[in-house]
Amino acid sequence: MLIFSQLTAYYSLYFRKMISIVILGTGNVAQNLFEALHKKDEVKVLAVAGRNTDALNYFSNRTEVFTDWTHLPKADVYLMAIKDDVIHEVSEKLTLDGLLVHTSGAVPMDALSKHSHTGVFYPLQSFTSGKILDFKTIPICVEATSEKDLNLLKYVASTISNTVEHIDSNQRKALHVSAVFTNNFTNYLYGIGKQICEEYTIDFSLLKPLMKETVDKLDVLTPEQAQTGPARRGDRKTLHSHLQLLNDKKHREIYKLLSNAIKAHYGKKL
Amino acid sequence: MLIFSQLTAYYSLYFRKMISIVILGTGNVAQNLFEALHKKDEVKVLAVAGRNTDALNYFSNRTEVFTDWTHLPKADVYLMAIKDDVIHEVSEKLTLDGLLVHTSGAVPMDALSKHSHTGVFYPLQSFTSGKILDFKTIPICVEATSEKDLNLLKYVASTISNTVEHIDSNQRKALHVSAVFTNNFTNYLYGIGKQICEEYTIDFSLLKPLMKETVDKLDVLTPEQAQTGPARRGDRKTLHSHLQLLNDKKHREIYKLLSNAIKAHYGKKL
Repeated sequence: MLIFSQLTAYYSLYFRKMISIVILGTGNVAQNLFEALHKKDEVKVLAVAGRNTDALNYFSNRTEVFTDWTHLPKADVYLMAIKDDVIHEVSEKLTLDGLLVHTSGAVPMDALSKHSHTGVFYPLQSFTSGKILDFKTIPICVEATSEKDLNLLKYVASTISNTVEHIDSNQRKALHVSAVFTNNFTNYLYGIGKQICEEYTIDFSLLKPLMKETVDKLDVLTPEQAQTGPARRGDRKTLHSHLQLLNDKKHREIYKLLSNAIKAHYGKKL
Repeated sequence: MLIFSQLTAYYSLYFRKMISIVILGTGNVAQNLFEALHKKDEVKVLAVAGRNTDALNYFSNRTEVFTDWTHLPKADVYLMAIKDDVIHEVSEKLTLDGLLVHTSGAVPMDALSKHSHTGVFYPLQSFTSGKILDFKTIPICVEATSEKDLNLLKYVASTISNTVEHIDSNQRKALHVSAVFTNNFTNYLYGIGKQICEEYTIDFSLLKPLMKETVDKLDVLTPEQAQTGPARRGDRKTLHSHLQLLNDKKHREIYKLLSNAIKAHYGKKL
């Protein structure tokens, strides 16, 4: 991996100017991108555009705001931080000179194919309303139709993040599926854990240090090495007694499927 | 919740002496307990007992070590940090005067019923070989057959942890099932995420900040509020394209079951 201070210095010379940016969208991703970018010397956020005037208030004291997306200022990069299902539609309505990129993990780059300079600038994180995260730790996955545009995106990304990766649309789709397993599904399992705790008047927050450590362990072990529990041990007695404790049919079904998958996975290796 | 510095001061007066402890077992839990307890003024680890002489070397410079479990020094508390399936068997062989407790999330307290003073001292965390964790953040779930013994365990626990909870055997079993969902199963899903990344030559560590944030979010949102993703949105197009990308039959089966569970859960609320 490149050392990004070097990369920044290199591209800074290469581009020889401050990169101008317009953000399209006003939601959590737009807010987090704005907070990270607007304090950087290498870039300037010229404007934020959005249809929701209330949401635009968040930005209006610090940059120009536009509700009319058809009259945006000229910029080097247009970052679309809008919902997946309107990316294509909105992009078709825009007439721009610069590089148009979206920030979605799930939408292929060619959704923007009306335009000649396109790319993707995907921050691999889940953003929450009102919560501004430290962008330095958020990987940014970039892709572009040309090498020059790709370098421009790498440069912009490297000003705000320590981890910038070139990920093509096919890889990004796989990354998105992987994120469904490691984020959406794990969160759903946290919800089941909480329901079980509530049934037995246990404070769910007791489990948080364990949940944090489950992730932190992966700094030193692979998930395969870190796997523990009754299914991993093939401990039928405990598996049976857990199934008896679960009152919700759906929870039992998930418990069985995942336990069997773990048993089958490790069984092969015994 | 009690302020534990007050609790410690209170029980310190109540017990009016240093609490002596013998640890039975030499594994990850025993090592972590030893590291946390041996530096506390309120307690003294008199000895560690184990059958594995190599493993006892870890402790031998800092406390007495025993391989013969039938001749242990007299102590206030005997902490059994041994495998679940031998707790009952070992406890039957011991002849002791003090309070005998095990440290398991899965074994009921009455596994120790040969003895008159028994309890449970369950640190709710997953310990890894060679990794010493900060015990202050690890919840300790205590239970005992008498109020006096329970207070003694609360006192000992409060010297090393900020979170001490009285959890009965039935609640502890529910907590253990909840931990299977939030630790064992999520770790298995991390493994699937890693496999998908590897198939597409993507560095799995790109997903770690997302995995950490999935847990951290729960400081401000419930899992239900935090749920996102294609299943939550009822986005059939993405669900379908994800299923097409998954090559492993087992992964598809898990993807379908969890997505349908999320759809059903949130469908009810729409």
